[in-house]
Amino acid sequence: MTPDDEPGRNNAGKPVAIVCLSGGLDSCVTAALAAEEAELALLHVSYGQRTADRERLAFDRIADFYRVPADRRLVAHIDYLARIGGSSLTDRGIAVPDAPDSGPTDGPPSIPNTYVPFRNTHIISIAVSWAEVLPADRIYLGAVEEDSSGYPDCRRPYFDAAQRLVDLGTRPDTDVRLMTPLIDLSKAEIVRTGIRLGAPLHLSWSCYRNTDVACGECDSCRLRSRAFEQAGESDPALSPPDAR
Amino acid sequence: MTPDDEPGRNNAGKPVAIVCLSGGLDSCVTAALAAEEAELALLHVSYGQRTADRERLAFDRIADFYRVPADRRLVAHIDYLARIGGSSLTDRGIAVPDAPDSGPTDGPPSIPNTYVPFRNTHIISIAVSWAEVLPADRIYLGAVEEDSSGYPDCRRPYFDAAQRLVDLGTRPDTDVRLMTPLIDLSKAEIVRTGIRLGAPLHLSWSCYRNTDVACGECDSCRLRSRAFEQAGESDPALSPPDAR
Repeated sequence: MTPDDEPGRNNAGKPVAIVCLSGGLDSCVTAALAAEEAELALLHVSYGQRTADRERLAFDRIADFYRVPADRRLVAHIDYLARIGGSSLTDRGIAVPDAPDSGPTDGPPSIPNTYVPFRNTHIISIAVSWAEVLPADRIYLGAVEEDSSGYPDCRRPYFDAAQRLVDLGTRPDTDVRLMTPLIDLSKAEIVRTGIRLGAPLHLSWSCYRNTDVACGECDSCRLRSRAFEQAGESDPALSPPDAR
Repeated sequence: MTPDDEPGRNNAGKPVAIVCLSGGLDSCVTAALAAEEAELALLHVSYGQRTADRERLAFDRIADFYRVPADRRLVAHIDYLARIGGSSLTDRGIAVPDAPDSGPTDGPPSIPNTYVPFRNTHIISIAVSWAEVLPADRIYLGAVEEDSSGYPDCRRPYFDAAQRLVDLGTRPDTDVRLMTPLIDLSKAEIVRTGIRLGAPLHLSWSCYRNTDVACGECDSCRLRSRAFEQAGESDPALSPPDAR
């Protein structure tokens, strides 16, 4: 078997990787890591979240930055998640909270109302279906366990279980690996990794609330700005658009 | 805790079940089984398959038969599966094959081109998200291992792995069971079960090809008609519409 016969490799024998790219900081750095070893295919999932258009813009800009051709970009709309509701990210009747105080608490952390029920499984499902057809032999996800606000579908045991489901639920000759290279990193390490690899962090977008200037107060903004501080950098997303 | 405080139960303490209802024979009988023990919520997933409109009609008719209210019906469109392609059910460039000869063959059965990559995981994901919000405490799927044409995502180990993913990927207080009551039944047993329970088999639709009269030749039609023969019944889907 020559390299170009191997499923999930391009004509030069280089692997093809699908990166699940929301357009946020974590997925932007994940794309930079994937680009080190594979040819990129980029998946963006829009689920009717408040900032969907702004995230899509970030996706397009990052995809342009990496010169990913049109047939290697897939934008999937799963609007039924907004109809199902249950999350402040998709239900306008539920307010996005400010970040909670980060002091020690008793008992396990509660799950914030920004949790979108079982969201990552939808994203993985789409990526796996695409990987079987494209084909690609690996799927990159920017999940981060430490700073994931307690979301159950951002932890290593969840991804181990998802890998098993992929192995059992696809064709016998399909071999797709789920890659979560950031999962054990701190946010500051993620920022440093992105800067080291030349990731286009200035094109990424993380705010849960706004679409012009990041609010700086929501859970996602606070995690991001603390990460830049700890890495000794300033966050370009907090500058007004015309300053970038 | 009184019964009406328990998540996934209605005011009378009866469980709420989400049934994944394609509108075919198997899911119709699955709905009948679920209705024996739970209040029904019905999920229909349209994935850009050739016979989507006809399957939706079957869904509506079966939902009406069971008097399921509008807020307990969810129709989700996952059209990106058709854009991804790779299956004769969603890609008009690939012909739906006639059923293969059913004699013994050497080696494992090959997977037919009607396989839609990782499809059942998309359906399970939607059902689980809805179950967390509704809430419902069980999800019924009409998967059948024996007659599933070798689809990898119709087997018990796949559903066991999916259950583990559901347990790990949802809120700690969410307890949703995946139920596959038909998985070990033969098609003839499914027909007999449906008749015993008064399932509206005459409203169900299974053909992969047509939308007026079932073709009788595709894999799905052949499995269905053989099942009715073995059960000693005639298949109402093979009669012209005005005879039903």
